[in-house]
Amino acid sequence: MERKIILTEKEIPDKWYNIVADMPNKPLPPLHPGTKEPIGPEALAPLFPMELIKQEVTLDKYVDIPDEVRNIYGMWRPTPMYRAYNLEKALDTPAKIYYKYEGVSPTGSHKPNTAVAQAYYNKQEGIKKITTETGAGQWGSALSFACQHFGIQCEVFMVKLSYLHKPYRKVMMNTWGATVHPSPSDATAIGKKILSENPDTTGSLGIAISEAVERAATNDDTKYALGSVLNHVKLHQTIIGQEAVLQMEKAGDLPDIVIAPFGGGSNFAGLAFPFLRLNFDEGKSIRCIASEPSSCPKLTRGQFRYDFGDTAGMTPLLPMYTLGHDFVPAPIHAGGLRYHGAGVIVSQLLKDKLIEARAHDNLEVFEAGVTFARAEGIIPAPEATHGIATAIAEAERCKREGKSETILLNLCGHGNFDMKAYEDYFAGKIVKHELSQAEIDASLAKLSTPLIP
Amino acid sequence: MERKIILTEKEIPDKWYNIVADMPNKPLPPLHPGTKEPIGPEALAPLFPMELIKQEVTLDKYVDIPDEVRNIYGMWRPTPMYRAYNLEKALDTPAKIYYKYEGVSPTGSHKPNTAVAQAYYNKQEGIKKITTETGAGQWGSALSFACQHFGIQCEVFMVKLSYLHKPYRKVMMNTWGATVHPSPSDATAIGKKILSENPDTTGSLGIAISEAVERAATNDDTKYALGSVLNHVKLHQTIIGQEAVLQMEKAGDLPDIVIAPFGGGSNFAGLAFPFLRLNFDEGKSIRCIASEPSSCPKLTRGQFRYDFGDTAGMTPLLPMYTLGHDFVPAPIHAGGLRYHGAGVIVSQLLKDKLIEARAHDNLEVFEAGVTFARAEGIIPAPEATHGIATAIAEAERCKREGKSETILLNLCGHGNFDMKAYEDYFAGKIVKHELSQAEIDASLAKLSTPLIP
Repeated sequence: MERKIILTEKEIPDKWYNIVADMPNKPLPPLHPGTKEPIGPEALAPLFPMELIKQEVTLDKYVDIPDEVRNIYGMWRPTPMYRAYNLEKALDTPAKIYYKYEGVSPTGSHKPNTAVAQAYYNKQEGIKKITTETGAGQWGSALSFACQHFGIQCEVFMVKLSYLHKPYRKVMMNTWGATVHPSPSDATAIGKKILSENPDTTGSLGIAISEAVERAATNDDTKYALGSVLNHVKLHQTIIGQEAVLQMEKAGDLPDIVIAPFGGGSNFAGLAFPFLRLNFDEGKSIRCIASEPSSCPKLTRGQFRYDFGDTAGMTPLLPMYTLGHDFVPAPIHAGGLRYHGAGVIVSQLLKDKLIEARAHDNLEVFEAGVTFARAEGIIPAPEATHGIATAIAEAERCKREGKSETILLNLCGHGNFDMKAYEDYFAGKIVKHELSQAEIDASLAKLSTPLIP
Repeated sequence: MERKIILTEKEIPDKWYNIVADMPNKPLPPLHPGTKEPIGPEALAPLFPMELIKQEVTLDKYVDIPDEVRNIYGMWRPTPMYRAYNLEKALDTPAKIYYKYEGVSPTGSHKPNTAVAQAYYNKQEGIKKITTETGAGQWGSALSFACQHFGIQCEVFMVKLSYLHKPYRKVMMNTWGATVHPSPSDATAIGKKILSENPDTTGSLGIAISEAVERAATNDDTKYALGSVLNHVKLHQTIIGQEAVLQMEKAGDLPDIVIAPFGGGSNFAGLAFPFLRLNFDEGKSIRCIASEPSSCPKLTRGQFRYDFGDTAGMTPLLPMYTLGHDFVPAPIHAGGLRYHGAGVIVSQLLKDKLIEARAHDNLEVFEAGVTFARAEGIIPAPEATHGIATAIAEAERCKREGKSETILLNLCGHGNFDMKAYEDYFAGKIVKHELSQAEIDASLAKLSTPLIP
């Protein structure tokens, strides 16, 4: 009874999978925020290296993973897949539950999968510095780690509130050689302006993005990097599912259901897209379910329309499921899932009913997280508990229906830096929170962006 | 160029190795603290289950690992061995450096290797509850995790200072279902007495031990567990080296030098003993080096004599290298290495010159830790940085001497819960600290326990 399905480094896939090639309806183009006219990839040139821009719009079904990227992936990849025997027993379910564990990376989540690739392509194009924003620090850590390995400077603008209250992620970034500014900072014009107007502000992700983008746009040897939402980020994350398909084969099994937490979509895309390929290519009918918090339910209760990627309304307009770009979700611990919109590929797939979505309350996900930790040992990140909640719900359905279905879950990260969340749970501070339809309607009513029929 | 040497679960060794069987000079017996007469294993019966007491004194060369323990080991074992290509490159050394990584366990260190075994034997003997003490929480976490899997209650007495200042380890223990008391507590007679005399005390490891022992000694269905020092603990940890011997074979290599950090000795014993067996059985001459902090240098500057295992002088007298049982080391971040003495087996081996020891300053180890993190990605626990410092020193010697020796290091845990230490390092708060000979002499002069010729 082996719990782990492992691959050797030689088995690390050599191609990322680009689902756009197989989509029956391709994503609609982004629109210029002012003219509302479709814009091409050249608009991204000041911020991203050319190879990543090409990946953003490619229709090739596969993209080769460079040897140097595969070599660094080998520091923690292939990641293990586990058969969750203990959890199955705890739930007394006939379902078979597997999980792919991305928490073994140096930063403890799936984020380095794209950080390493992005750093590599920047290095290839002679870039000396990459800037980014980070909230709680998961993405900033991953990019710091990646830049360290390519000798690229990394400059992170970290929301000041997190900088002050979550110092350990900052220390992690420093350990990998990155410079971390509390945002707003006096390192940028926009930061200085905001500080002069409001010296006591604790910052926001929107401000941090503005600072990171300003730095990249105003320095020739500097580019900017994003940790989710964009197509090339999702592409890189498919390394997860590419491995998982091999691992399920090794286990002599095939999932009926693939589940992953959903923030911007990169973690869901990473596991699910290579299994959707089996649906496209081999006529399988694997259900892929994105798990979101009921406090930020863009997939289950949002609207499919054009909206801005950022709060301030500066980015191109993207066709996506959204709650409105200035929607402010409840301050749940799963900070990585508090984004107002979904990436364009995932949105189109949901619109076309090729994937499903499910929302879970904040209390339910922590109950699921503790059940998982007690059975399987690993204490999951708050984001990861959302996928666990879906897996448990499906396993319980299997029990009711007497079905032995196979469930595969993306356990995207450990909770070692999130123990405050569990402390709050045990102290009874995490409560059920209902988001009213009126709140969603009010947020969407503020939009004047194009609807999509 | 594969970085990782991995084993399958089927390859988890089925025997622990008991080095006592091969030692030319067996450890001297413990002495009664009052009469100073040798005592037998029956003295331990109120505290430990019989099977562990038998393991404490067995002369059998191997002890079978029960299937149920191997099954739980399979949740994270076999742990990976890495070839540290990046570190070799960073040091520009001809040495080959490997590390065995124990940080993949659910608690992030090697401690569950013995916690699971101890919980199993207690369960076999019908024990309902296990008590223990914990300082920073690493051992308490491991025992909580292990007890959870056998349905045994776990009660942890956590030094109040840590309970207040390091709440996340406590939350981790709660997550695995343990009860955690700040020590001194009102749950024991000794705790109540101390609290009544000194309500504001922040506790000590000595007090926490007293509380845990009182609970076990006064309840028939309750036993006590220790996380290091004792022989059966070292025995269980040899799972590390038993795997590592197989992994080195797989790599087609053999270490010239085996290195591990040294606190009570279980982590060093775990990796080194199975390689010392190759010296005994096959005439190899593998150097095994224990790495200790220069602020607590019992192996390099202590005295080999009988001393108490605890600060208060309540335990049997043990023959060991010691700095004196009330020696108070500087408050370094590597809390797990601040013990005043060395376990009896390791002490005898050092006395017989079958192993070596090396001390490193607190500043040197953090420099080593950051070098490692930047090269290999993993941020090591402060304890683990001591072994890294020795490995780097040996690799640099290899470079000076133009020798391509093979070095194997025990990376016993990650630093995810120790980022405050790195924060202090980057803030320049970690300084070189010299321990004077006068301080050591003064501590040893207080001992009236038997000297060993």
